[in-house]
Amino acid sequence: MSERIVIKNLAAHADGPVTVSGWVETVRDQKKVQFVVLRDESGAVQLVNPRNSDAEGVVIADEPAITISSLAQGTFVTATGELKHDERVKLGGIEIKLSSLEVVTEAIAETPIASDSSIDKRLDWRFLDLRRPEQNLVFRLQTTFEHALRSYWVEHDFIELHTPKLMASASESKAELFEVDYFEGKAYLSQSPQFFKQMAQPAGFGKVFEVGPAFRADPSFTSRHATEFTSIDSEISWIDSHEDVMRLHEELLVAGFAAVKEKHGAEIEALFGIEVTVPSTPFPRIPLAEAKRIVAERGYEVPRHDDDMDPEGERQIAAYVRETFGHEFVFLTDYASSIRPFYHMRHADDAALTNSYDLIFNGVEISTGAQREHRVEILEAQARDKGLDPEELDFYLDFFRYGVPPHGGFGMGLARVIMLMLGLSSIREVTYLFRGPNRLLP
Amino acid sequence: MSERIVIKNLAAHADGPVTVSGWVETVRDQKKVQFVVLRDESGAVQLVNPRNSDAEGVVIADEPAITISSLAQGTFVTATGELKHDERVKLGGIEIKLSSLEVVTEAIAETPIASDSSIDKRLDWRFLDLRRPEQNLVFRLQTTFEHALRSYWVEHDFIELHTPKLMASASESKAELFEVDYFEGKAYLSQSPQFFKQMAQPAGFGKVFEVGPAFRADPSFTSRHATEFTSIDSEISWIDSHEDVMRLHEELLVAGFAAVKEKHGAEIEALFGIEVTVPSTPFPRIPLAEAKRIVAERGYEVPRHDDDMDPEGERQIAAYVRETFGHEFVFLTDYASSIRPFYHMRHADDAALTNSYDLIFNGVEISTGAQREHRVEILEAQARDKGLDPEELDFYLDFFRYGVPPHGGFGMGLARVIMLMLGLSSIREVTYLFRGPNRLLP
Repeated sequence: MSERIVIKNLAAHADGPVTVSGWVETVRDQKKVQFVVLRDESGAVQLVNPRNSDAEGVVIADEPAITISSLAQGTFVTATGELKHDERVKLGGIEIKLSSLEVVTEAIAETPIASDSSIDKRLDWRFLDLRRPEQNLVFRLQTTFEHALRSYWVEHDFIELHTPKLMASASESKAELFEVDYFEGKAYLSQSPQFFKQMAQPAGFGKVFEVGPAFRADPSFTSRHATEFTSIDSEISWIDSHEDVMRLHEELLVAGFAAVKEKHGAEIEALFGIEVTVPSTPFPRIPLAEAKRIVAERGYEVPRHDDDMDPEGERQIAAYVRETFGHEFVFLTDYASSIRPFYHMRHADDAALTNSYDLIFNGVEISTGAQREHRVEILEAQARDKGLDPEELDFYLDFFRYGVPPHGGFGMGLARVIMLMLGLSSIREVTYLFRGPNRLLP
Repeated sequence: MSERIVIKNLAAHADGPVTVSGWVETVRDQKKVQFVVLRDESGAVQLVNPRNSDAEGVVIADEPAITISSLAQGTFVTATGELKHDERVKLGGIEIKLSSLEVVTEAIAETPIASDSSIDKRLDWRFLDLRRPEQNLVFRLQTTFEHALRSYWVEHDFIELHTPKLMASASESKAELFEVDYFEGKAYLSQSPQFFKQMAQPAGFGKVFEVGPAFRADPSFTSRHATEFTSIDSEISWIDSHEDVMRLHEELLVAGFAAVKEKHGAEIEALFGIEVTVPSTPFPRIPLAEAKRIVAERGYEVPRHDDDMDPEGERQIAAYVRETFGHEFVFLTDYASSIRPFYHMRHADDAALTNSYDLIFNGVEISTGAQREHRVEILEAQARDKGLDPEELDFYLDFFRYGVPPHGGFGMGLARVIMLMLGLSSIREVTYLFRGPNRLLP
């Protein structure tokens, strides 16, 4: 391994000889002195090379000056020189006076994207787009967020699952299913780990989680949809109602936001102008019917024929919650059975309502959770009620025939959480490689 | 949430009233006293119910005796009673004298599998098979193993990736590719995150990891192959050779094995008769050509026409390493270019060999690692050399045209590591839901 110092560690390093490696962000090739801004995965530093002159004061074409003059942006180099702390240097108060510069791989002298390129163009060149400090930060803070969730789960004795993404039949709605040629037959890509994380309940696993891909053959082009996305799922047994799921959900988000704020809060503020708020618990909870009344009182009639909210309604109720409770999150609870999947448990005293919720963050739905129906006769009846064929669901219904504890859980879109945490407008900005109906490359 | 105590915590609990929840493992319905072994996600405990008699000494049919007599195996119950520590009780030295027993969900009185059922039959009923303590332990220790790896990565500033599993073209070999109907066109399921984790290098991410599914349309039915498996991947920049990758790989495995041994070592020994060994570093390294000579000296001629090892050769070299170095792991290094993918870097002084390795654990290959070729002209030439069309690879080759650091990494099959750690004979035993050419259910 090369003996380079990562750039973020230079500030704490004593003046003296250092070696750094990274890519060339900018070159200022002036007559008497050359400046290179070098970036690596951790930050940027200025390299400086005062030109040498001959006895008559004429600048000499020597190294590393010749190399610097020919550097294309993006070229990866290893630079050696004298580190010097100097308050006058804008970039971090340090610079490196170059003694040698080794070109490791040359970049072609072309910059296919600029900071004002369209998102689509940027996605064409995603590997260059990701070099921007904002993008680098997105994936570092996402790593921190996920690790905080996983640490919570592991400390609380959850088992991590890797459920199969290849299925013999649909997990939820057939409409959004990708079909796969599977040897002599067909398979389908999992839309969610729903059935299989539930399977961990009769298996006696107690509490489980999974972070993995989910696939939706959804032809929509909104800023919130993708054909492939990372789903965060958890499922726990021996709950009394969806209230227990919401409590878990809150604690996980607090753990995730606290870790991000602590590790990246200052950088997020500098690069995105956002102060990350660690949410207080409990998050506000509002039954959906009440939320619709509140929204109507604010002058917005949800233009839907079913009982559901719409995106504008979600923004409205979020505005109400912000004004009333000063909170960025709200659980909308007790959705109508008519708009929930067959496996959501219905109220004991009103089968028109379910033990379920959506979680709204800054006006956008990021998650659905529920208590599941674990009584097989009722589950079968509810499936039939939804026009599903219980025979096709037989492998799933079997999970409930040999004993199962009461249970519930949630699924949450990772990209939506990160997008909203940073005040961004599209999940494309926070997905490593976005997949949509028109995008399979790179 | 119900106020139950998880069973593993009973031992440290004072005698007195407790509530536990779980499923019925066995019932002994004797004339004067009934015993139920109740299991939950953490362990098993004996419930005891002395029958009541009337004045003439005739046993009365009262509760919970009636309920106990009708309990089917697998029924989920909540039991309340008096905890009593008693050394004479074989099962953990404790028992609960029942005061009440609530049936939460009845199981149908049928046990489709027994401990001696075939693996295929057990996989048909995987959710019941997973109730066995051995299976529960597999997934708890796998969780610990993964979390130890992730903690190492996070502490060392790696970025976690979620690369897309839907691709426009093959990542490695076309032969083993699953085809997906993708709107009006076709997509393919990723066989490995190879190309996309490499993309993080020109993106300037430095060090990355991913744990996620990979798909191989491989029609083989061996104990080591699946059509979908969990792949552990890591990729790092600024390496000098594959030696740097091996060092990372060793450290990760030491972290994983140490965490498993510490948390589950005693249980693994009790349930699998295996003492987990934390490997010492450095792991032995043997160039493949030398390994073949060693194996030949042991009397085994590898019956292959190419330069590769075969499974028996791997077992032989592992036996040699165990005898000679007392080590369960060995890196076989410097594979021939002829049997490595086009993107493996070749030796500077001998293009017939690559900067690559396979990692053998207890005689089975668990991983392939390499330094990657990052010089685009050479990469293109090597692709052509392998009969690949550089035009089809253009999106990948682009990653190298705009600057990229030297880099390398590895991919490792999670199930194989866990299988070999526990001395098991098939990855089916350590996969939550196995997928093979003939298996998509449950």
